[in-house]
Amino acid sequence: MTEALGAGAAGRVTFTRGGLTESVHRVHAAVVDARGQLVAWCGDPALVSFPRSTSKPVQALPLALAAPELPADELAVACASHAGTPEHLAAVSRLLARSGSTVADLRCGTHPPFDPEVAASLIRAGEAPTPLHHNCSGKHAGMLLACVLNGWSREGYTEAAHPLQVRIRELHAELGGVELEDVQIGTDGCSVPALALPLHGAARMFARLAAPTGDLAPALERVFQAMRSHPFLIAGTGRLDTTLMPLVPGLAAKMGAEAFYGLALRETPRGPLGIAFKIMDGGERARPHVTLAVLRELGVPVTEELRALAPTTLHNWAGREVGAVGVELGLEWAERNPAG
Amino acid sequence: MTEALGAGAAGRVTFTRGGLTESVHRVHAAVVDARGQLVAWCGDPALVSFPRSTSKPVQALPLALAAPELPADELAVACASHAGTPEHLAAVSRLLARSGSTVADLRCGTHPPFDPEVAASLIRAGEAPTPLHHNCSGKHAGMLLACVLNGWSREGYTEAAHPLQVRIRELHAELGGVELEDVQIGTDGCSVPALALPLHGAARMFARLAAPTGDLAPALERVFQAMRSHPFLIAGTGRLDTTLMPLVPGLAAKMGAEAFYGLALRETPRGPLGIAFKIMDGGERARPHVTLAVLRELGVPVTEELRALAPTTLHNWAGREVGAVGVELGLEWAERNPAG
Repeated sequence: MTEALGAGAAGRVTFTRGGLTESVHRVHAAVVDARGQLVAWCGDPALVSFPRSTSKPVQALPLALAAPELPADELAVACASHAGTPEHLAAVSRLLARSGSTVADLRCGTHPPFDPEVAASLIRAGEAPTPLHHNCSGKHAGMLLACVLNGWSREGYTEAAHPLQVRIRELHAELGGVELEDVQIGTDGCSVPALALPLHGAARMFARLAAPTGDLAPALERVFQAMRSHPFLIAGTGRLDTTLMPLVPGLAAKMGAEAFYGLALRETPRGPLGIAFKIMDGGERARPHVTLAVLRELGVPVTEELRALAPTTLHNWAGREVGAVGVELGLEWAERNPAG
Repeated sequence: MTEALGAGAAGRVTFTRGGLTESVHRVHAAVVDARGQLVAWCGDPALVSFPRSTSKPVQALPLALAAPELPADELAVACASHAGTPEHLAAVSRLLARSGSTVADLRCGTHPPFDPEVAASLIRAGEAPTPLHHNCSGKHAGMLLACVLNGWSREGYTEAAHPLQVRIRELHAELGGVELEDVQIGTDGCSVPALALPLHGAARMFARLAAPTGDLAPALERVFQAMRSHPFLIAGTGRLDTTLMPLVPGLAAKMGAEAFYGLALRETPRGPLGIAFKIMDGGERARPHVTLAVLRELGVPVTEELRALAPTTLHNWAGREVGAVGVELGLEWAERNPAG
């Protein structure tokens, strides 16, 4: 079916100033239902793209499979792009200890914590960030535990040929409903393989999180519930996953770098849906706006609290109103398409 | 001539990962010669856009006209989007004192200094940034002095109806070669009017800086020389204007928010040129890449030092190579176009 559906017009998020267009972001999106069928899209639903950290719920599946009794907070931080707060670091440290690993075993690299208060407090204390502060440290700690529990070496756990990464790629193909060779391999910011697949495949992975079936269902359900029950651990103060999930019943959401987004949505008029979108220029600022437009077009009630996540009025440093943000998504629906 | 030239394909800056396109930025550009003729472009040279801080050399003209003896460093900081270092603040303070003004008279608002070391040192000292740290404080100090020297009130100097802002809009029309009503008015991040004009108009303003003529020539020459002789004051450590200008003979360059750029280029095989480009999504990271591609296509020797400003290889937090950046600009030339 996917092949029969041609790419349509990309969605647009427009930033205006004084009533004039200043900047425009283009968006491709795919929506897949519980049967794995592509039901709606904008732009090119077959666009091959890197979900980046949006892959984390799938990258955490080998852990969820091997450690069914793992506390939900530790599974959540294994799915996180966290902000490096003490709460995040404590969860990562507990997860790391389970495999007898230490911070020296993490291969994610180091960057200043995303949380500005924590970053400032490190500066005030004259302390350097450690790999624990890296937003992917929970994923890496989870990968180390998955290796130990599966009897795989922790050595080279970030390499594409390592059994863990081979398994993760197979899971992308299986859950994404695409051939293994259609899951392409790059390298992510934290040095593990970044896997690329068509947008409808990424949406299908999230549809499986929204409506788990088959052998993987218990592990998918644990990942989904871990994300929903610990939204703070998934990201951090003021960040979209954290603020969004508590406001939408039955939603698990995960950001990825370069403005990718994945949403597993259990409660819609069309039943459970998986959504993936990519803002083509990597413009992260447009993500909340696209998210709200997608929810609205899928029939999810968009409350005032939700609208506050994507302000449509822009203010300058002096607090003065200077512009606006508009979204034209215009999802096309397969059922209205003769090719569908 | 401009009307006869249809818009062509936008330029593209492509970020790849593992050989696969990850993100794409689209670019519109216009190149104008010393006679004010549009000679080359990509995308739509008539795109109406906000130069934002790229307007600063023109916004500083009333100051340059009223204070012909002003030291070049103070004129430079009036054209700057500065990083808030002590050197920048000292120049702004000297300029501010000339009109008997203080930091309390600045209407730019406040943001943390762009220079990360200075921002960190403020945090360590437990100090809050002041309006002096705002990247536009030099422009505002210059505007206050221009008001005093012209006998205009300092009150309301940021308002579109103030004589200073009226004069600046007239200068945009005159130097841009467009009608006054074609210079549209928004509000900038620092609360002064943000003026919008067609891209060829912005390029024409920079062509006038590259080849000053007429009554404004002495003031245009002072602005050009101030920018070239104080590249650090124009921006700051590691920022494009500052690193670029010393590497290209006869170039004055000024960044604007939302990925606008203006270049006044005196030494090219076609004589002096003015260039303006806008990266349509506001993606600032693509600016160095577009700049180098423009210089190359205009016949300016691109040295190894220049190439280092726009690395084509991407590395992750662990220092590992993960991707590449490519540019397809493909300027169209009026002389090869039957409509030209």
